[in-house]
Amino acid sequence: MKRFAGVFTPVVTPFTSSDTIDEAAMRSNVAQWMKTSLHGLVVLGSNGEAPQLDEEEGDRVIAIAREGVPRDRAFIVGTGRESTRATVAATRRAAALGADAVLVRTPSFFKPQMTTDVFVRHYTDVAETSPVPVLLYNVSIFTGVSLQPEAVEQLAAHPNIIGMKESGSDIGLIAEFASRTPADFTILGGSATMLLYSLSAGCAGAIVALASLVPDACVTLWTLVREGRLQEAHALQRKLMPLARSIGGGHGVPGLKAALDLMGYRGGFPRPPLRPVPPAVIDTIRGQLDALGVLPARV
Amino acid sequence: MKRFAGVFTPVVTPFTSSDTIDEAAMRSNVAQWMKTSLHGLVVLGSNGEAPQLDEEEGDRVIAIAREGVPRDRAFIVGTGRESTRATVAATRRAAALGADAVLVRTPSFFKPQMTTDVFVRHYTDVAETSPVPVLLYNVSIFTGVSLQPEAVEQLAAHPNIIGMKESGSDIGLIAEFASRTPADFTILGGSATMLLYSLSAGCAGAIVALASLVPDACVTLWTLVREGRLQEAHALQRKLMPLARSIGGGHGVPGLKAALDLMGYRGGFPRPPLRPVPPAVIDTIRGQLDALGVLPARV
Amino acid sequence: MKRFAGVFTPVVTPFTSSDTIDEAAMRSNVAQWMKTSLHGLVVLGSNGEAPQLDEEEGDRVIAIAREGVPRDRAFIVGTGRESTRATVAATRRAAALGADAVLVRTPSFFKPQMTTDVFVRHYTDVAETSPVPVLLYNVSIFTGVSLQPEAVEQLAAHPNIIGMKESGSDIGLIAEFASRTPADFTILGGSATMLLYSLSAGCAGAIVALASLVPDACVTLWTLVREGRLQEAHALQRKLMPLARSIGGGHGVPGLKAALDLMGYRGGFPRPPLRPVPPAVIDTIRGQLDALGVLPARV
Amino acid sequence: MKRFAGVFTPVVTPFTSSDTIDEAAMRSNVAQWMKTSLHGLVVLGSNGEAPQLDEEEGDRVIAIAREGVPRDRAFIVGTGRESTRATVAATRRAAALGADAVLVRTPSFFKPQMTTDVFVRHYTDVAETSPVPVLLYNVSIFTGVSLQPEAVEQLAAHPNIIGMKESGSDIGLIAEFASRTPADFTILGGSATMLLYSLSAGCAGAIVALASLVPDACVTLWTLVREGRLQEAHALQRKLMPLARSIGGGHGVPGLKAALDLMGYRGGFPRPPLRPVPPAVIDTIRGQLDALGVLPARV
Repeated sequence: MKRFAGVFTPVVTPFTSSDTIDEAAMRSNVAQWMKTSLHGLVVLGSNGEAPQLDEEEGDRVIAIAREGVPRDRAFIVGTGRESTRATVAATRRAAALGADAVLVRTPSFFKPQMTTDVFVRHYTDVAETSPVPVLLYNVSIFTGVSLQPEAVEQLAAHPNIIGMKESGSDIGLIAEFASRTPADFTILGGSATMLLYSLSAGCAGAIVALASLVPDACVTLWTLVREGRLQEAHALQRKLMPLARSIGGGHGVPGLKAALDLMGYRGGFPRPPLRPVPPAVIDTIRGQLDALGVLPARV
Repeated sequence: MKRFAGVFTPVVTPFTSSDTIDEAAMRSNVAQWMKTSLHGLVVLGSNGEAPQLDEEEGDRVIAIAREGVPRDRAFIVGTGRESTRATVAATRRAAALGADAVLVRTPSFFKPQMTTDVFVRHYTDVAETSPVPVLLYNVSIFTGVSLQPEAVEQLAAHPNIIGMKESGSDIGLIAEFASRTPADFTILGGSATMLLYSLSAGCAGAIVALASLVPDACVTLWTLVREGRLQEAHALQRKLMPLARSIGGGHGVPGLKAALDLMGYRGGFPRPPLRPVPPAVIDTIRGQLDALGVLPARV
Repeated sequence: MKRFAGVFTPVVTPFTSSDTIDEAAMRSNVAQWMKTSLHGLVVLGSNGEAPQLDEEEGDRVIAIAREGVPRDRAFIVGTGRESTRATVAATRRAAALGADAVLVRTPSFFKPQMTTDVFVRHYTDVAETSPVPVLLYNVSIFTGVSLQPEAVEQLAAHPNIIGMKESGSDIGLIAEFASRTPADFTILGGSATMLLYSLSAGCAGAIVALASLVPDACVTLWTLVREGRLQEAHALQRKLMPLARSIGGGHGVPGLKAALDLMGYRGGFPRPPLRPVPPAVIDTIRGQLDALGVLPARV
Repeated sequence: MKRFAGVFTPVVTPFTSSDTIDEAAMRSNVAQWMKTSLHGLVVLGSNGEAPQLDEEEGDRVIAIAREGVPRDRAFIVGTGRESTRATVAATRRAAALGADAVLVRTPSFFKPQMTTDVFVRHYTDVAETSPVPVLLYNVSIFTGVSLQPEAVEQLAAHPNIIGMKESGSDIGLIAEFASRTPADFTILGGSATMLLYSLSAGCAGAIVALASLVPDACVTLWTLVREGRLQEAHALQRKLMPLARSIGGGHGVPGLKAALDLMGYRGGFPRPPLRPVPPAVIDTIRGQLDALGVLPARV
């Protein structure tokens, strides 16, 4: 009933040493993820360094990834911009390029003006003009603003707004979103340390960077919850916790890219001003992957 | 193995209309809680309005509550003060008055000086001189400061520091505390909206205001987790969520006191400058209690 | 000795009711400001709604404004973007379109990664490739990050980084920037309520929205400080305070646009999701302008 | 017309190595300050480590200092507590011990409940029962809460509330307080880096730690402003800025105590958990005092 329930990974954008999109690396990563049990991919999210891409690059990322995702998996595109106009335009382009849905981050630059009324107007305008379903997106750690329950309740009544991603870790807030929205409104979590708990509190799935590294483990956890095998789910959540905390935390996109390299994906360079993590952080992450027994054998 | 595992409620301090401690109300509440399955009580915590009591009143609260708690239940006393000296003194008095353990809130007034070194020295001095076991206490929503994992790891090595209460909702942080402390170190959660999840992530129990209102439900949840009956535990957590969010949130101690009145306890007046919640808030809380089917019949 | 000392106004971008740039209004405003004593203009700053413009629109704004500004006044262009690459590109385009200098806001999306090292690398890369002088730009109220004194000290040594704008109101910080940078490094304030005080503490000028409304008064204040006529300067600062507080505060760009309309400029519509201020705010602003005796007579 | 206009210093509480009040040191400091041009003293403020003293110690501090302050200088006592009841009691004791006025910090522990209504009720109750005039006190850096202009406006109408101290650096806010309160309402600044500017924006004086170290310089600055000799005032403010920033900033009370020792006062030990500053900080402060030419010759 809920559309886009499941586990998705946000796709990183690998860059070459000359700061252009490494298209081959991107294709390779997508192909590798498509061999896993992931329910779909999200491009142009925070972990995709979307705020650092120009519009042409963004369109190219969509096109490349779309080619690699078969129609039976979900393909979601981040299209949030600061202005309603740019968000509408990006949403239309994403739909034309094959997005199954769009994930629309809150505008946030003019924080004092970002009221519920302003958000409702903004998202309504986007939903009215979007050819594909719209997912709201709260990521206050980066934006400093947040859609409140009142805004989500109002917006969930729009037929083209089918769900939201809440990146924060306030389980009570997630539960309140769930209680104020229709049964077919999909809430997706964004915190891997909370994966199981968010699924229990009302989320129908998640979009988490951890799923880039250990996709099958994340899908397994989701499935265990679905099947009511909660003992196993809790054990798995605890096992994943150190890596989840490390990848979701202060190391940011550069840490995720280093971890992808260790796992046999091609993380590539982060785009400046972001810089690669230092060797000590790579060692920490290697240790956490090793503890999970998922590190590929070195040839 | 872990001492003070279980579900505890923080005890409110009821005041009369003339702003003195309502001792009869307090005795009555304690007696009523002792008919439930609660593992113990905590007096002089935030919900006990401890920062608003003078030392004589605090001692009186300890004495009254101690009388009502049999020896087979845990009796914990909050003794955190801004200075090490006052904390040591309060801890000794609490022990002399029968505390089984003390719960020591971080000092916090001089925020920029509250470093890991300062905290380690402070808690070590308290632990060295305390006749009873010490529990650390992070409640950054009120204090604006927080013990970091490094501090907790160092302090957990002290034989008289046996655990901590973490009031925040960062499950990853709780898991990190658990991973850095010995197996017999007790971590207690402080957020009712996270009760099940914190138990899953490493907590051995909780001190939550919700347990003042629906003590048996909270203990049941704890027991279900212990017994691995997680389906029932998750269902119960979801059922409790609206009340948990309401009581733990913006209504504060006055909201808790109003809810206690509705449940047949004697919340009494909050101490000024705190003021009773308005009727509309009481109605909201009544609705949430009613939805749980726990409201006592009106005679 | 200090280049770009003086009083500048950030130029708003007026939009038509169909959300396109109102070029006629923009030309009209620039022409009107050029009849005042302002030392120059800044386009594509926060008050220019730069984060809401696409690159083509931004270039158009530069071109239109450039035409209206004679060579003996300074013409500064905001070119900060999230990536180094886009900032370099925007800077080059701005220079090609006639910018005398660029004002480069800190990148800020990935807050935990925005360290002094990252900022130094970013700004050095921009300065190395910029055909025109670079001004650093701290506006933490919107970005949530801030260049620290260490970063400013290092960057001020670069021959193509000639100054900075500090939008915050921490006078001690401004004084520290002044004490750590060479004598010819220009610090510009960004807070109209602090205009006189920032000039006293080390600023050589300011970029303030208030100067859009009462340009001559702002320049007079700057001149009075230069000439040591501080009694008059203090009296003028106090007189301007209510309007300064109103325009710099919570009403944001929509408030500034409404005030411009009242003053006979053409503020135009804000771009959605921003919305015009309600009538009550317009009345408040009208009262503050009226108190200054600057409201144009209604025909 | 404004009572308690002038420059006051907050008095530190020196402790012995065994953590008791060093009464001799305190007497000595007070006597030394009384040889300067200071308009008065404030005991039991933040810099007096008031939150770390018990009630008996606080009364002793009042009594000792009172003895050393002649009747023609102002003697102000901090009496803010978390509860209205304790604040009223402390205020009465302070008056009985000879306070000329009381400075009442906002209660702050239960932050979400600290609304304008709650503050107005609290301060009204204190003012009604206080035998001496009441000064409101905002110090949000430590308390995390703040009296808003609406609250100050209402409270300034009470005949026994004669002024306030605003420790923050928001000059626009100070100006708004000034514009909303009667002509005889005294606003005192609390930031030494803003000393001149706050005097210009509406303050009639200040209570700043800097005045403990260089009392005559601070009084001179105040006098220069009064006499309209603003050139000299600005030059003096700039000269004092590095020390002002250092003492008001991250080094806290321990830094102030070290600086007092260097200046020939007796700072004594800070009370644990506060700890003395390390030698490197002492060297920095010595350098700043030396730059002012105020360091006493070493015998």
